[in-house]
Amino acid sequence: MHLTSERRLDDGVLERAFTLGEIPGILWTPGPVSAPAPAPLILLGHPPLGLRTMYPRLAARARHSAAEGFATATVELPGSGDRPRLPAVERARADLRGAMEAGEPVSDETVDALVLPLVDKAVPEWRAALDALLSLPEVGGPVGYSGGVISIGIRLAVVEPRIVAAGLFAGSLVPRAMFEEARQVTVPLHVLLQWDDEGNDRQAALDLFDAFGSTEKSLHAHMGGHTGVPRYAGDAAARFFARHLK
Amino acid sequence: MHLTSERRLDDGVLERAFTLGEIPGILWTPGPVSAPAPAPLILLGHPPLGLRTMYPRLAARARHSAAEGFATATVELPGSGDRPRLPAVERARADLRGAMEAGEPVSDETVDALVLPLVDKAVPEWRAALDALLSLPEVGGPVGYSGGVISIGIRLAVVEPRIVAAGLFAGSLVPRAMFEEARQVTVPLHVLLQWDDEGNDRQAALDLFDAFGSTEKSLHAHMGGHTGVPRYAGDAAARFFARHLK
Repeated sequence: MHLTSERRLDDGVLERAFTLGEIPGILWTPGPVSAPAPAPLILLGHPPLGLRTMYPRLAARARHSAAEGFATATVELPGSGDRPRLPAVERARADLRGAMEAGEPVSDETVDALVLPLVDKAVPEWRAALDALLSLPEVGGPVGYSGGVISIGIRLAVVEPRIVAAGLFAGSLVPRAMFEEARQVTVPLHVLLQWDDEGNDRQAALDLFDAFGSTEKSLHAHMGGHTGVPRYAGDAAARFFARHLK
Repeated sequence: MHLTSERRLDDGVLERAFTLGEIPGILWTPGPVSAPAPAPLILLGHPPLGLRTMYPRLAARARHSAAEGFATATVELPGSGDRPRLPAVERARADLRGAMEAGEPVSDETVDALVLPLVDKAVPEWRAALDALLSLPEVGGPVGYSGGVISIGIRLAVVEPRIVAAGLFAGSLVPRAMFEEARQVTVPLHVLLQWDDEGNDRQAALDLFDAFGSTEKSLHAHMGGHTGVPRYAGDAAARFFARHLK
C-alpha cells in the first residue's frame, strides 16, 4: 500500500489517498481526541460509479463514522473510475439500460453478467486492502462492511472472517446464486430497504433478507425511492456498528 | 378522572393509578429534573391480558420513556382485567384457540369477531382518557400512541387528531376492514415486525405496512418470535418518538 496524499479535514479527520497496486483507495481516520488507537474499521461499499463521483457521499459517511470513533476505508471497484473497463460487464450494463428503457423485465442472465464478475474480482481486492489497512498501527479490528453493491457485501461476509458485522442496502439487482451465499452469512446484519425503490424488486429484497443465515438480522424499510434514504436511517446504522464493533 | 393512589418510583417517576368511570388506568410522569412541564404524552397500548399481568412490561416502558422526558399512560382494555367480559369476544377467542391448537387457519370471521368489537369499544375510551389526561397541568401534547393491539392503534391514528405519531407492533391478527382504515393513516409511523412471529402472518404484516397512507413510515423487522423483540428495538422506537414529540 502506497500513501499518495493526505490532508486533515476541518473536523480533525485525517484523509489519506492510497494505491494498492493499480487500485486507488481512501482511508479516513478519526482525529486523536475522537477515538482510541487502533480504531475499529468500517469498509465503505459503494455502487460502481467511480470513487470521484461517489466522493462526497463517501466522505460524509466517513466523517459521521469518525465522530463515532471508527476508521473507514474504501477502494475503487473493478471497471470503475480510472480503472480499465470490464467489457462483459459493460455489455451487461447496456443490456440492463435497454431493458429498463423499454420497460421490460431484466433477465437473470443480464443480472448475472452484470454482478457476478464484479463480485468475483472485487472481493479478493477488498480482502487485500483489509490486509494492508490492518497493518497500520492506527487501524484495528473488529471490521464492519457497510453499503454498496449488496452481492459484494454478501460474499465478503461469507469468506472474510475478520468482518464481524455488515450493514447492507437491499437496493441493487441480486443474482439468484447470491441467495444461496446469503444462507451462509452468519454475522449480525443491518439491512436497509427503500420501500419504493424504482430499480429494485421489493419482494426479491424481502426474500433475500429472509435467506440470510444470521441469527441477528434487522430489516429497516423506509418510504421512498433509491436515493431517498432518510437521515435517521444513517443514525440507526451507526448504532448498529457501535453495538458490534466497540 | 379519579386518582386512586400514587407512589414515587426509585428513579423519581411518579406513578398514579386512576379510574375513569369504571375503567382503571395508570399515569406515569417523569421526575421534575428529567422533563419540562407539561411533558409530551405517549399512550401505552398493550394486548388484552389485563393491566395487572402487563404491569411489569408497561412500567418498564414507562420508566424508559420518563427518562426521555415523556409522560405515559394506559387504561384497561374492554373485557380485560377486572372489567366485565365481552361474551362475543370470549367466544371468538375460544374459536381462535381451537383453530390454533388444531393447526387450522384462523377464519376472517373469527378475526373480525375477536378484534372489531374491541376496537369499537376501546377507541372512544382511550379518547376520553386523553381528554382527562391532557387536562392535568403536568401533561401536555403532542401525543404519541405506542404498541398493543395494532387495530386499536390504527383506528386511534385515524380518528384522533391529537395523536401525531404512532409506534405499532405488527404482531396481532388484523381484520381485513382495518387495511382500508390503514390507508387513511397519515401520521408518521414506526412499525415493528418480528420476522418469525408464530401467531402472525408475515405477508399480512408486510401488506399492512404497505397499506398505511403515511408518507413517513418505517418498518423495523427483527429476527425471532412474538416475544423476542430485541432491546435495541425499544431504543429505536424511543428515538422515533423523540423526533416527533419534542
